[in-house]
Amino acid sequence: MSEAGFIKRLFRSVVSPGARARADRRARNAVLLCQALLSERGEVSGAALAREALSAYRELPEPGLATFFDLLVSEFSPDPQRVIAASEAYRANPSPDHLIHLQREVEPPRQELFRRFNMAPGGTAALVAMRWHVLEALKSHPDWMVIDADLAHLFGSWFNRGFLTLQRIDWRTSAIVLEKLIQHEAVHEITGWKDLHRRLEADRRCFAFFHPALLEDPLIFIEVALTRGISASVQPLLDVSSPVANPAQADSAIFYSITNCQEGLRGISFGNLLIKQVVQELGREFPRVKTYATLSPVPGFRAWLKSMEEQLVGAVDSPALIGELRGLQDAEWFRRGGASERLRPLLMQLCAYYLLVARQEGLPVDPVARFHLGNGARLERLNWLADTSEQGMRRSAGLMVNYVYHLSEVENNHEAFVREHRVVASYGLKKLARKCPLARRAARPGKKRVASSIQ
Amino acid sequence: MSEAGFIKRLFRSVVSPGARARADRRARNAVLLCQALLSERGEVSGAALAREALSAYRELPEPGLATFFDLLVSEFSPDPQRVIAASEAYRANPSPDHLIHLQREVEPPRQELFRRFNMAPGGTAALVAMRWHVLEALKSHPDWMVIDADLAHLFGSWFNRGFLTLQRIDWRTSAIVLEKLIQHEAVHEITGWKDLHRRLEADRRCFAFFHPALLEDPLIFIEVALTRGISASVQPLLDVSSPVANPAQADSAIFYSITNCQEGLRGISFGNLLIKQVVQELGREFPRVKTYATLSPVPGFRAWLKSMEEQLVGAVDSPALIGELRGLQDAEWFRRGGASERLRPLLMQLCAYYLLVARQEGLPVDPVARFHLGNGARLERLNWLADTSEQGMRRSAGLMVNYVYHLSEVENNHEAFVREHRVVASYGLKKLARKCPLARRAARPGKKRVASSIQ
Amino acid sequence: MSEAGFIKRLFRSVVSPGARARADRRARNAVLLCQALLSERGEVSGAALAREALSAYRELPEPGLATFFDLLVSEFSPDPQRVIAASEAYRANPSPDHLIHLQREVEPPRQELFRRFNMAPGGTAALVAMRWHVLEALKSHPDWMVIDADLAHLFGSWFNRGFLTLQRIDWRTSAIVLEKLIQHEAVHEITGWKDLHRRLEADRRCFAFFHPALLEDPLIFIEVALTRGISASVQPLLDVSSPVANPAQADSAIFYSITNCQEGLRGISFGNLLIKQVVQELGREFPRVKTYATLSPVPGFRAWLKSMEEQLVGAVDSPALIGELRGLQDAEWFRRGGASERLRPLLMQLCAYYLLVARQEGLPVDPVARFHLGNGARLERLNWLADTSEQGMRRSAGLMVNYVYHLSEVENNHEAFVREHRVVASYGLKKLARKCPLARRAARPGKKRVASSIQ
Amino acid sequence: MSEAGFIKRLFRSVVSPGARARADRRARNAVLLCQALLSERGEVSGAALAREALSAYRELPEPGLATFFDLLVSEFSPDPQRVIAASEAYRANPSPDHLIHLQREVEPPRQELFRRFNMAPGGTAALVAMRWHVLEALKSHPDWMVIDADLAHLFGSWFNRGFLTLQRIDWRTSAIVLEKLIQHEAVHEITGWKDLHRRLEADRRCFAFFHPALLEDPLIFIEVALTRGISASVQPLLDVSSPVANPAQADSAIFYSITNCQEGLRGISFGNLLIKQVVQELGREFPRVKTYATLSPVPGFRAWLKSMEEQLVGAVDSPALIGELRGLQDAEWFRRGGASERLRPLLMQLCAYYLLVARQEGLPVDPVARFHLGNGARLERLNWLADTSEQGMRRSAGLMVNYVYHLSEVENNHEAFVREHRVVASYGLKKLARKCPLARRAARPGKKRVASSIQ
Repeated sequence: MSEAGFIKRLFRSVVSPGARARADRRARNAVLLCQALLSERGEVSGAALAREALSAYRELPEPGLATFFDLLVSEFSPDPQRVIAASEAYRANPSPDHLIHLQREVEPPRQELFRRFNMAPGGTAALVAMRWHVLEALKSHPDWMVIDADLAHLFGSWFNRGFLTLQRIDWRTSAIVLEKLIQHEAVHEITGWKDLHRRLEADRRCFAFFHPALLEDPLIFIEVALTRGISASVQPLLDVSSPVANPAQADSAIFYSITNCQEGLRGISFGNLLIKQVVQELGREFPRVKTYATLSPVPGFRAWLKSMEEQLVGAVDSPALIGELRGLQDAEWFRRGGASERLRPLLMQLCAYYLLVARQEGLPVDPVARFHLGNGARLERLNWLADTSEQGMRRSAGLMVNYVYHLSEVENNHEAFVREHRVVASYGLKKLARKCPLARRAARPGKKRVASSIQ
Repeated sequence: MSEAGFIKRLFRSVVSPGARARADRRARNAVLLCQALLSERGEVSGAALAREALSAYRELPEPGLATFFDLLVSEFSPDPQRVIAASEAYRANPSPDHLIHLQREVEPPRQELFRRFNMAPGGTAALVAMRWHVLEALKSHPDWMVIDADLAHLFGSWFNRGFLTLQRIDWRTSAIVLEKLIQHEAVHEITGWKDLHRRLEADRRCFAFFHPALLEDPLIFIEVALTRGISASVQPLLDVSSPVANPAQADSAIFYSITNCQEGLRGISFGNLLIKQVVQELGREFPRVKTYATLSPVPGFRAWLKSMEEQLVGAVDSPALIGELRGLQDAEWFRRGGASERLRPLLMQLCAYYLLVARQEGLPVDPVARFHLGNGARLERLNWLADTSEQGMRRSAGLMVNYVYHLSEVENNHEAFVREHRVVASYGLKKLARKCPLARRAARPGKKRVASSIQ
Repeated sequence: MSEAGFIKRLFRSVVSPGARARADRRARNAVLLCQALLSERGEVSGAALAREALSAYRELPEPGLATFFDLLVSEFSPDPQRVIAASEAYRANPSPDHLIHLQREVEPPRQELFRRFNMAPGGTAALVAMRWHVLEALKSHPDWMVIDADLAHLFGSWFNRGFLTLQRIDWRTSAIVLEKLIQHEAVHEITGWKDLHRRLEADRRCFAFFHPALLEDPLIFIEVALTRGISASVQPLLDVSSPVANPAQADSAIFYSITNCQEGLRGISFGNLLIKQVVQELGREFPRVKTYATLSPVPGFRAWLKSMEEQLVGAVDSPALIGELRGLQDAEWFRRGGASERLRPLLMQLCAYYLLVARQEGLPVDPVARFHLGNGARLERLNWLADTSEQGMRRSAGLMVNYVYHLSEVENNHEAFVREHRVVASYGLKKLARKCPLARRAARPGKKRVASSIQ
Repeated sequence: MSEAGFIKRLFRSVVSPGARARADRRARNAVLLCQALLSERGEVSGAALAREALSAYRELPEPGLATFFDLLVSEFSPDPQRVIAASEAYRANPSPDHLIHLQREVEPPRQELFRRFNMAPGGTAALVAMRWHVLEALKSHPDWMVIDADLAHLFGSWFNRGFLTLQRIDWRTSAIVLEKLIQHEAVHEITGWKDLHRRLEADRRCFAFFHPALLEDPLIFIEVALTRGISASVQPLLDVSSPVANPAQADSAIFYSITNCQEGLRGISFGNLLIKQVVQELGREFPRVKTYATLSPVPGFRAWLKSMEEQLVGAVDSPALIGELRGLQDAEWFRRGGASERLRPLLMQLCAYYLLVARQEGLPVDPVARFHLGNGARLERLNWLADTSEQGMRRSAGLMVNYVYHLSEVENNHEAFVREHRVVASYGLKKLARKCPLARRAARPGKKRVASSIQ
């Protein structure tokens, strides 16, 4: 069964009492197999039992699934009495022995159950899918949180970056892997095999991380264009019929898409490491490439703009401009030359302000900005009408950003960002942000903080 | 540096005060790198820092090593105050949140440090070696136990059996792997490449488990001879100049050696699973093979005999025989036909008694018996003068045992062994054990337990 | 440059005198490089010179190509005087020495030139493409025949079946190879990746032969459906949305397509061997499959029918039926239930007669029949409206044939076919052929031959 | 059966009449299978028949083998009448058609037989072994020459350099391949696995050519030491216990051994190409290496010296020196310091003269010199007591030569050598050769040729 099908099962509606009772019986039976797997019998017949238990779980009908997860919570959690007893012993004498004892008592038997599940063929993939299912259902079943916590803990250990392999993806790659790229690509949709083929030509690169237990499932992949100069808009990069350039003449590598493939590995981050390994890899193959930059969306910009409407009315002097801003609602605004040109300076300033100044709990509001700045990249350039796709207009008002990765400054940038929440940006972007009406407003006497944050 | 060299460093003797001071400085520096690796900087420059920290550790001179491990204990352990606080919170309200919080507080930062170490190339191998070093030094540094516990916990997760691959080893295998077999073989020494080659001919099989991060280092390997009938002595199997038989005519597969290669993975057991997977593998290749049996030493027999001397004097009626028993001291006793033949019935009975009846904390005294019986094998046959090598005579008085693996009965045997400490043995062996003078003595009125344990 | 582009160049039209002169110069220059490659210099700098010469040839503009091939004919052929002298010496004394000498003299230097070309990277593929080009142009340049003969001789040696590897093609195969299947499939067009994917599901098999020097270019591939019963029509097999069956339950393997991919290897046949190796391969994987049969077109049937029009008018009694036969012209005839049903008996008889009796130089007229019967297959069954695609109707009047491969009878069938031109067919097909009006006519007194040929 | 065993069979002695008759019958039977393989039956059942025929041949007892080869000569050669008829037709009209017809008639059916043999598993290896056997027996069976010629022709096509792959051999290579190096090494014997291991350490390189049909049998391999400066003696390179140097600091690559492994491929040369590809390969890995030189024996030197004894007596003025020269007979002469030092100038001059001036049919007498000079290398330096092994002293009087490969001058050197038989040598070597007493003698008035040949 596909994962999508699975999720559907979770939320399927009315079930007859008889079906529910049967589903419950099957769920209890699956749990019995889990208990056997954890017992002595599991010690000696591990692989066979794991296979059996896993398949009992996979074949559960929807109403049984909830029962199964409920039982995973109730039957495989630590015994509070024993935890408390071990805590007491440790408090009385915080010796290594007592600590180790306490560590053992607080670890849920569920974790060992999951480790044994993993012995079954396909076990790793099944557990990753299980976490996805739990995450999807967490809102309606908050107590399943402990299942999520156990799986997240395991995955943090299993998907250690030291075990991952970086692989180049090209037209020589297996169709079973290529198909996954088409399915998962989240930034700029791949419309089919022809589109994919263009993205794997000589002037493009694609790399992915794989785990040895999931050799046909990329964990994360990144798409790169080898160009002359930093790309200022994404449509030419995506154009299926564009001529293939000679990569040996490129001076820039543009990361135009990075996609996590495994929902079940949420929170276990590979992106930072992937970008840096790819920079090194490309550096070896193309010594003439000097600039490594992204061409990234600003996905939170339009939503933020909307949330700032009131302030903008106060800050922008021209009612006409305010009108034009409201005109962004019209999906085709950017095709109307005059209006678009009039809006350009203001939108660029607002976006620069949004990226450099706007904060949420101290960090930039924009999630893509948080990711790249947190990795130590530098905000380099804002590009006008850089992504005119429906999604690009709707989320980012057509704007895109180049974040630049200089390996030599990445560590400092990262520390500045993490410790002082400082955003490292080019002079041009800072100037734009300072010109923003919101900044001017904020910068009035006695309100120095904001302006000075654009250093 | 080789691992053996490393161990030597640990116990090397007098060091000048200056050298010690320098070594201490380097150890402290290595620990600083470890702290950096755990910090924010480690987040972004993980792989590079891990490489640096690992290499600082690997290059420590001997006196620095102890300092380094001491600091690993003192600087990277949980904070007792925080552990106690989290325990209190949990006791007050044993909610999932409090449990998860407590779990986090009891986990030593060392574990995360080790996970980050693993990002360096060669990191996994280095950590496995580190545990070996710690284990070797545990007697003189008992407080390093916590390092061992953390590494053991990690390895239990990383070396999950679901991640291991079973590989056939033959003459097509890389020399770098074959060389490891020669180095590690612990049961019947491999004397060189010619010996190894014979063990990989058409009538032999060798399989090993590998972990994807240690592709040139087998974790454990097993050697099998394909024979007609169950082998009763090991020297013919090891004879380098024996003719190669046609494996298609074999009806038995004799497991004559199984060796763990990684001291640093002590306590993480693969042997049980390896044997069972190999049984399945051979079953596919050789449908005519019906019997899967070991040809195993009885390594604790002579030592136990010695410990039983007093009882034997009481139980054996013939002073001559007692004299012959004492003659086992003479390494060549078995070459003297008469003496050897006279001893045979008694020694066979004693060995059967040793395997079936002698107990230590309820379990068989013999470690090899514990391993195979714990895996669900059956004690099948005792073989006289089956291993006349120096080691075979010294430890096992030349006797060897066939343990038989029937996949269909393995689970029951295992449970009988684990729950009731019952040893499943053939009729012949039970008969032998009952005839043993010690059994007869033990079986006198009021001492039913022992005799009845030989069911 | 693609091969298709190359062919176009050959036939491109008007060329200016200046362009022609330049092209000629370049062709002469390429030939100079070929001469260097054959000289002493070629001995020591072979690979480098081969690369240079090959690239000079590949980059020739169209008018230069003809000059180049003309020079290949005139400059690299054996010297008639030397051939005649060696012949004379042999005639005078047919000794081994003289024979070997004569062999050397008759071998064109072109062959050695081609062997040296092959040292360049991509050399083998370039030579295969060269032969294709020569074959395509042979009608207008009959003297290029000697180039074709030399390449055919070389390829016969290089593409020896002992060097080919059989590979299963599935969804795990590289996209670069899969794409070739889409491009080359000649029997039932593959409409895209979705269509291809369905042909590689669990109830389908695809195998190809590869040569080690052309690892991304299948030489020939075959597509198989695993079914219950022998398929009687092809559209269900090709249906992209058909459910995937469980291959373990199949009792038949239907070869529904076999395609040669390399035009340049024309005349070097792999099909026979491929079918037999695939039968063995499938026999190992699916012991329950008992029948290996094709589902093949009858591509020459409609053309033959047309050529027989006169005889048919004489032989078929019913003018109405003759009218219906003429109605085959209408592409949609088969959709008209009545007409179609009325025609059925006659068309089936005619097709059986066509396959079993109609001859050209003693062999069956139909090329597909010649191929499978020559391989030792048996004509098993004729299927009505079995391929209703445009091509199927146009060439085969919608009929398809099952040829059955029984490995045990293949050799006898083959010899019967080759020696006596005897077609081995099922009783049903023979009966059909005998009922054919043409057969009845042929069987009139004094015309026994034909009828008796349907044994 | 091993190839060595096979050769032994060929020359085994007395055979009883009965055994001979049985052997003959089996040989005739094998030939019948060969005829079937060439027939129509072979067309359809090729692979199966090839396997059968090959195995009939392989299992022939010795006396049958000669019969078999005799029949291969008599039964599978061209028909003289048909060859003559085709010659006549060609003479009358040397058209392409007639030429192609003549080519077909002169090709022995044996060649097609061998091509079909090749379809059997292991066919290629068996044919290579067959040629070795024929070559070994050629002296006593000169008429088998035609078998040799046919196989040589086939192999020239099959083992085309474009099909070979260059592979690095190191400690990661399969033992089955490594073992072949130990068996075949012909220049400096490999004494066992330890010796081999040293030759594959970080400061050594080993490369081999493989053919895709013989993946476990290297065709030829070369051993390289990465050094600082050009090595002047070979024992340090071969020293098993020498410390492993850092290859990144090397400035020279010394080719100290090159060995052909397949006797059956005699006359099909790979050495030249291997050296050049290895130079390129090393250039990529070690940009700091500037000098590629051999350290080669002078294997014909002592034999030539002996043949020149008379002239030497006339040319060398000092009777004492003549005495010392005769002392070379004593295997230990070089250990006697004084004598050795006195001989040094004379021996060096003689060896230089031998390499530069001594000729056989216009080419240097020394086979190693012919090989490297023919490849375009330059004679660079003569090294005193450079190989003091028993073989080194016996054949080369302990001298070794460095031939230098400069890729940029290789082509010119090769042409000078081939066209003018000119030996390209360093100034030092030319000077040495000119000082040689034989040169002085040759250079007397009216005998300018020799001296001038040392340019």
